[in-house]
Amino acid sequence: MADRGRLRWFVPDGYLPAESSHGIESHEAACLLNVSDEEARVTFTFYFEDREPLGGIRLTLAAKRTRHVRLDRRDELGVELPRGVPFAYTVESDVPVVLQHSRLDTTAGGYTLLTTIAYGE
Amino acid sequence: MADRGRLRWFVPDGYLPAESSHGIESHEAACLLNVSDEEARVTFTFYFEDREPLGGIRLTLAAKRTRHVRLDRRDELGVELPRGVPFAYTVESDVPVVLQHSRLDTTAGGYTLLTTIAYGE
Amino acid sequence: MADRGRLRWFVPDGYLPAESSHGIESHEAACLLNVSDEEARVTFTFYFEDREPLGGIRLTLAAKRTRHVRLDRRDELGVELPRGVPFAYTVESDVPVVLQHSRLDTTAGGYTLLTTIAYGE
Amino acid sequence: MADRGRLRWFVPDGYLPAESSHGIESHEAACLLNVSDEEARVTFTFYFEDREPLGGIRLTLAAKRTRHVRLDRRDELGVELPRGVPFAYTVESDVPVVLQHSRLDTTAGGYTLLTTIAYGE
Repeated sequence: MADRGRLRWFVPDGYLPAESSHGIESHEAACLLNVSDEEARVTFTFYFEDREPLGGIRLTLAAKRTRHVRLDRRDELGVELPRGVPFAYTVESDVPVVLQHSRLDTTAGGYTLLTTIAYGE
Repeated sequence: MADRGRLRWFVPDGYLPAESSHGIESHEAACLLNVSDEEARVTFTFYFEDREPLGGIRLTLAAKRTRHVRLDRRDELGVELPRGVPFAYTVESDVPVVLQHSRLDTTAGGYTLLTTIAYGE
Repeated sequence: MADRGRLRWFVPDGYLPAESSHGIESHEAACLLNVSDEEARVTFTFYFEDREPLGGIRLTLAAKRTRHVRLDRRDELGVELPRGVPFAYTVESDVPVVLQHSRLDTTAGGYTLLTTIAYGE
Repeated sequence: MADRGRLRWFVPDGYLPAESSHGIESHEAACLLNVSDEEARVTFTFYFEDREPLGGIRLTLAAKRTRHVRLDRRDELGVELPRGVPFAYTVESDVPVVLQHSRLDTTAGGYTLLTTIAYGE
């Protein structure tokens, strides 16, 4: 009960809308929190409906820091995810962290947000 | 703790809005993730406020794949759910999976989204 | 692990917006699912920031049914909750059920939705 | 199982939008519920992407009360959080409580809401 997070997190509903407006791109963020004293090495794996998973995407999260990883930014993630395509992802970490998944969709001329704490084990 | 999901998931707030706009139908999606090496056989049961449950709706989810099942599409689900009526549903699987429930409501001329990881056991 | 729900549920963020538009009242719903073979007797207690709790509000939920209880309807709930005031609530049940909390806010001329599975014990 | 809450809660996705409209400021609320017979002493710690955590922010939550703590109000929180900057936070309590995190974003001329029960341990 002193873990302060979990080592594996699951997000079934990933989606980067194809359209945007208001001068801000529709996007998703994988928001990670590491309250421990150690840097966390995290690995993302992306799952699709009709192709093999895209795995082995490694990032680090400093001790006592949050990081809101934009899933639409190749320069942050190291890979480019397709827009307009359903996907899912998991995050595995070597120290306990917490993952919350959020989306901003600006397709229809306004903002709409969604969020949920991911499923953790 | 190596399950990577659960075998039973519960979503109490199902609702397919009766109206739509923006050229995109208001809808819900049951987003499933199967990170295992085996195909998952999942069974949906829909519950209503004033009638018997509608059960035995079987789908498959390939190994290492996600599937975002549109609840408003008879061709995906095998049954047609009523619009404008409160319902709920459960998903049972023979291998551990994760379920996230999402809705897009375009009734009022813009988009609004909701999501939550379902309750799992 | 065969409970198919929990006996106590907690929702800290209750709020009935004071304003509405689009011909639909801003509202919240406590969406309950009872997959068991027995009727569930549930008790709602509402908590406020600056006054005593309002408890002992009893409803029933038939076996194998869902019920999306509108929190803004005195005729459904038996009490009238104030609008424009932060509150919270718990639901206790004599058989395991699942609770998801949702809000539709139409204050600003469009729709916005929020939802979460409640915290259960 | 009679705890009626948890002692530590985690919210990875904190964000106070820099812009507002509709005469209502974009904001977040940490919605706490204390159903116990004792006052809860809670401590907030805020985490950032590129600076040291801001900790030791103490508030009280009376017995059998909710409190929806506005994160954008210095007079409620005792500190001023930056707008337009990703952050995260934890809440530690000396008696079990429940935390739900919500945001209202009015940047784009309408309302959009998000919410989730926090991750608790």
